[in-house]
Amino acid sequence: MATQNAIVKSRAKSSGPRDKVYEIAAEVFHNKGYDKTSMSDIASAVGLTKAGLYHHVASKEQLLYTILDYGMDMTEAYVVRPLDSVKDPVVRLKTMIELHLKLILEGRKLAVTGLLHECQGLSPKSENRINRRKKEYVQLVSDLVGDVLDKTKSHKDVNPKVAALALLGMLNWTYQWYKPSGEVKPDEVVREFQDLFINGVLGTGEC
Amino acid sequence: MATQNAIVKSRAKSSGPRDKVYEIAAEVFHNKGYDKTSMSDIASAVGLTKAGLYHHVASKEQLLYTILDYGMDMTEAYVVRPLDSVKDPVVRLKTMIELHLKLILEGRKLAVTGLLHECQGLSPKSENRINRRKKEYVQLVSDLVGDVLDKTKSHKDVNPKVAALALLGMLNWTYQWYKPSGEVKPDEVVREFQDLFINGVLGTGEC
Repeated sequence: MATQNAIVKSRAKSSGPRDKVYEIAAEVFHNKGYDKTSMSDIASAVGLTKAGLYHHVASKEQLLYTILDYGMDMTEAYVVRPLDSVKDPVVRLKTMIELHLKLILEGRKLAVTGLLHECQGLSPKSENRINRRKKEYVQLVSDLVGDVLDKTKSHKDVNPKVAALALLGMLNWTYQWYKPSGEVKPDEVVREFQDLFINGVLGTGEC
Repeated sequence: MATQNAIVKSRAKSSGPRDKVYEIAAEVFHNKGYDKTSMSDIASAVGLTKAGLYHHVASKEQLLYTILDYGMDMTEAYVVRPLDSVKDPVVRLKTMIELHLKLILEGRKLAVTGLLHECQGLSPKSENRINRRKKEYVQLVSDLVGDVLDKTKSHKDVNPKVAALALLGMLNWTYQWYKPSGEVKPDEVVREFQDLFINGVLGTGEC
């Protein structure tokens, strides 16, 4: 496990030419639609010949799978692993919100997030693999919420799983409305989402 | 305006054969992907001949536009209009959460919601029209949040627009995870989302 994490981390940190290919390809799929995008479109966008692109990936379906798997690798490396060193449950949850949002809003992962729910192009086997990774992440977020509830002993009737899905909705929906050139900056989204969700889970007893 | 609303209402309430066509077509698009779906697929799913389907809609693009426009009509009729009779800001916001969720979870609008962010198939003119309707709805939700903040005079540093987008993310993301056959029932989602969001906006001052 440690070795696998080390690999994920080193892969994530390298942000080499392969990662750039995935990120640009994700943007092309996202903007043009997966079905309408040809491998020639991708090759042209990433500055490779079609043969050069096929050197990296065997097919369009494999490219989509690789991008989604890469999106989950990024989540693992930049959100899940850094949480290992945070002990306080509330701080852990706030950190998760910050890291997840920054991965989407400050990187070029907006398009990857947009693709993460378009698994129609995948083979059933690949779709199962991606869905398994998504479920593990939902479980992790659900556990984070559960730990906060246990610690604060407040608001007993929160179902941590439903709350986790609400949070992931808030976070992932940003790809629908966030514009890097817009008025709202990532730091404001982070602060406001942290306040909203932590206050929401802790409860005021007013409603 | 009153006349227009009356038309929207009567159209929404009729839930006639045309509405069924839209809802079933939305499910086919959602499951198979818009690009991969042919008009023959739609005709077969709704039990019409291809000629019969073309009697209702001129093209696949027009069908997609009509479905999305229908989704916004439903939101207008079943969420926005009923709020007119609710005066208290907190109750209005809670009611909006309940009605929006029930429209998605209890109707057959899950697929329509899924399509609402796949505007790639639309002409620029149609896309603009749908986006204008979406923006009006975001503004309405933002105003609802603003009214709650004004009334309660709490948590001054909430940007109502960002909070509204967070809420719409929570609500609309349900199409990603909600299963009618699953353990979590619509009433539980409604109650938990209301508590989470209202508590979140009102704030506890604990974080």
